[in-house]
Amino acid sequence: MNMVDLIMKKRNGEVLSQAEINFFITEYVQDRIPDYQAAALLMAIWFRGMDKRETGELTVAMTDSGDKIDLSAIHGIKVDKHSTGGVGDKTTLIIVPIVAACGVPVAKLSGRSLGHTGGTIDKLESIPGISTSLTIDDFIRQVQEIGLALAGQTANLAPADKKLYALRDVTATVDQLSLIASSIMSKKLASGADKIVLDVKTGSGAFMKTVDEAVELAKAMVDIADHAGKETIALVTDMDRPLGRMIGNSLEVEEALAVLRGEGPVDLIEVCNLLAANMLYLAGQGSLSECADLAKEAVSSGRALEKFALMIAAQGGDADYIRGHKQLERAGKVHDITAPISGYIHYVETDDLGKAAGLLGAARLQKDTEIDHQSGIILHKTLGDYVVQGEPLVSLLYNKTNSLDEACNLALYAFEIKESPAEPRPVLLARVTANSIER
Amino acid sequence: MNMVDLIMKKRNGEVLSQAEINFFITEYVQDRIPDYQAAALLMAIWFRGMDKRETGELTVAMTDSGDKIDLSAIHGIKVDKHSTGGVGDKTTLIIVPIVAACGVPVAKLSGRSLGHTGGTIDKLESIPGISTSLTIDDFIRQVQEIGLALAGQTANLAPADKKLYALRDVTATVDQLSLIASSIMSKKLASGADKIVLDVKTGSGAFMKTVDEAVELAKAMVDIADHAGKETIALVTDMDRPLGRMIGNSLEVEEALAVLRGEGPVDLIEVCNLLAANMLYLAGQGSLSECADLAKEAVSSGRALEKFALMIAAQGGDADYIRGHKQLERAGKVHDITAPISGYIHYVETDDLGKAAGLLGAARLQKDTEIDHQSGIILHKTLGDYVVQGEPLVSLLYNKTNSLDEACNLALYAFEIKESPAEPRPVLLARVTANSIER
Repeated sequence: MNMVDLIMKKRNGEVLSQAEINFFITEYVQDRIPDYQAAALLMAIWFRGMDKRETGELTVAMTDSGDKIDLSAIHGIKVDKHSTGGVGDKTTLIIVPIVAACGVPVAKLSGRSLGHTGGTIDKLESIPGISTSLTIDDFIRQVQEIGLALAGQTANLAPADKKLYALRDVTATVDQLSLIASSIMSKKLASGADKIVLDVKTGSGAFMKTVDEAVELAKAMVDIADHAGKETIALVTDMDRPLGRMIGNSLEVEEALAVLRGEGPVDLIEVCNLLAANMLYLAGQGSLSECADLAKEAVSSGRALEKFALMIAAQGGDADYIRGHKQLERAGKVHDITAPISGYIHYVETDDLGKAAGLLGAARLQKDTEIDHQSGIILHKTLGDYVVQGEPLVSLLYNKTNSLDEACNLALYAFEIKESPAEPRPVLLARVTANSIER
Repeated sequence: MNMVDLIMKKRNGEVLSQAEINFFITEYVQDRIPDYQAAALLMAIWFRGMDKRETGELTVAMTDSGDKIDLSAIHGIKVDKHSTGGVGDKTTLIIVPIVAACGVPVAKLSGRSLGHTGGTIDKLESIPGISTSLTIDDFIRQVQEIGLALAGQTANLAPADKKLYALRDVTATVDQLSLIASSIMSKKLASGADKIVLDVKTGSGAFMKTVDEAVELAKAMVDIADHAGKETIALVTDMDRPLGRMIGNSLEVEEALAVLRGEGPVDLIEVCNLLAANMLYLAGQGSLSECADLAKEAVSSGRALEKFALMIAAQGGDADYIRGHKQLERAGKVHDITAPISGYIHYVETDDLGKAAGLLGAARLQKDTEIDHQSGIILHKTLGDYVVQGEPLVSLLYNKTNSLDEACNLALYAFEIKESPAEPRPVLLARVTANSIER
């Protein structure tokens, strides 16, 4: 097999065979195909796309390029969850204990991030004492013993994706549906769960700006899972505003704990209930509405919060912070931004609020920089709310920053305020399965 | 300026600015842009193309990436000639002395080749004693003294093209019109002539299989020359049969000498007269038909042959071979292929005849292999001729080959013989200038 022929085939609009896709991935990951040939193929794929079979086979080849986690020692149906990422998305911290509290084991691997705020693992590390580096054996043993674990990825999952993603990033070939979908799914398939719930975000704070694009991505990912024989449901949810009212690592843990206590903002509660219900549904716990009730009851009974406390303690963290005996500290300095006029909030440039939080210290702006877990943003008002001139819109919390002015500007101009009332769109915009798209 | 933005711009169908094109070429040739980004851009260009301005600017940037030969010390209008390459194309050997015999100086740099037979320089080296490695100073001095020189390229012409061409070869981005045209013209522009005649071959023995493709390439190259301010005429000529009756290095010199003596096959005589006439026309020697007469007269008077003898002598070669006192030796072994049926030759798979000659030793099959100058093919019949069963079609000449069977098969099956008469198409298929396309 010859890489030039393979590039030419895709360039000319033909489909690649499974053997050709496997050849490309296995040879590339072993450095036997040079980056310049991979780059030419990626650009040809950008123009020609890949069909459902090709995309599925590319994903499986990338999954097979590295470690695959074996969760079979854990009894029951293991359901994983993945979000395409948004501002203020702390759902994993809430859903994992809810689902576990309903008797369904959750073995969740999560990442750090170069995004606006940290990844789930960074957020979790706001809790004093916690360890997120578990061996795979300890990780599995913990799920067997207490029903849940939430740890960082230490295994070498889908190295082909890692190598290809780095190349896409510098060759203007990131924004291609099959490549995006296969990149996400190759890691998910390697993580060993039986079934998957995907949270595809759309709006001003998401990679997919329109609902149509988000549904297309959701369908592509569900098709890949179908190809790999793993039942998967994708929810397309709103990211035209930050999720909840808090952005920043320990602030997001604070808000997650509020939801687990039955408090917290309604949009966040609703997304978490939807995601947990769909995970429970895939685990065979009843109809979707029955599962939604199970998830609510896990919160109202206090069992979900207690599960979270157990997990934190098992991983060496101080569970007093979970059970409310101690409070997580916030950053020492606060800068309030007030509403310049009275009116309804019609638009929130969510990405800019995320960037502002990052500038305050909440994000790892480069690979090696430290995160300030305490910094971030609290929203006093959000999309659809009425605000009176001079009332606080947001508070910026920080310990040390060189970019306060820039963060203030981003935060202030992120809000569009008008006289007429504004109706934010619903939280759930679509639900995609292998056989259906409900909008 | 950022290479990712530049790739994305072209990928999205936008045009690149002159500054962006210059940035790409100057940084790439200095290894400051990696091959994988250049490959992604080339593939984006393959899909989106480049407009006339972009193609011109790319060519000039590649020309400026290396040495540029200054021919201003030579008095008069210097006209260069370039052929896109075909089987049995020995026109340069004939045209250079014809044009020089008409009083127009010709300073011609030519290449070796990895093709079916050697390049012009390899052919010339069939003549005992000849040197083709002249310093630029000696090269210019020779043209000043005797009006012509034909030497190998020693200068570092258009290194950006060299680097890009090697990358295109391994990334399936060779066959793109703007890239082909700019690659050829970047070297021509660097060679220092004032005006250029291009011979664009089309047919079964050429890169451009159809007349439409050939006209498109001709137009692209003429447009580039126009952009660079060098008046240029492109002739699209037939390559549905080998040009003349001889393929192979010293065989082609033999046939070139025949034409210069006023003998030789009519198709070759016609192409050479057309090319020489257009060169003389660009040099201001009269109307096209006047120039055609001048070219004929240079041959019939014997002046062209004598110019060639002078040039060979000036470059250390034995002019007795030119003046007919000595004969170039042919290869010692001959294998004839006879016609399997009687009839008219309707089709010649010209490429395959070229490959057969190469297998007999006429080509440099790899970069470092030696050429056997004496080997090659003599056609006894060509396109349109009537042949009687058992009559010789071609003779294969060789000294030593491991591929005689393969060469025989290629040569035999290259001919399609039918009962009905066949009319070969005319030699000249189109003439393209900056303002006109005549077909």
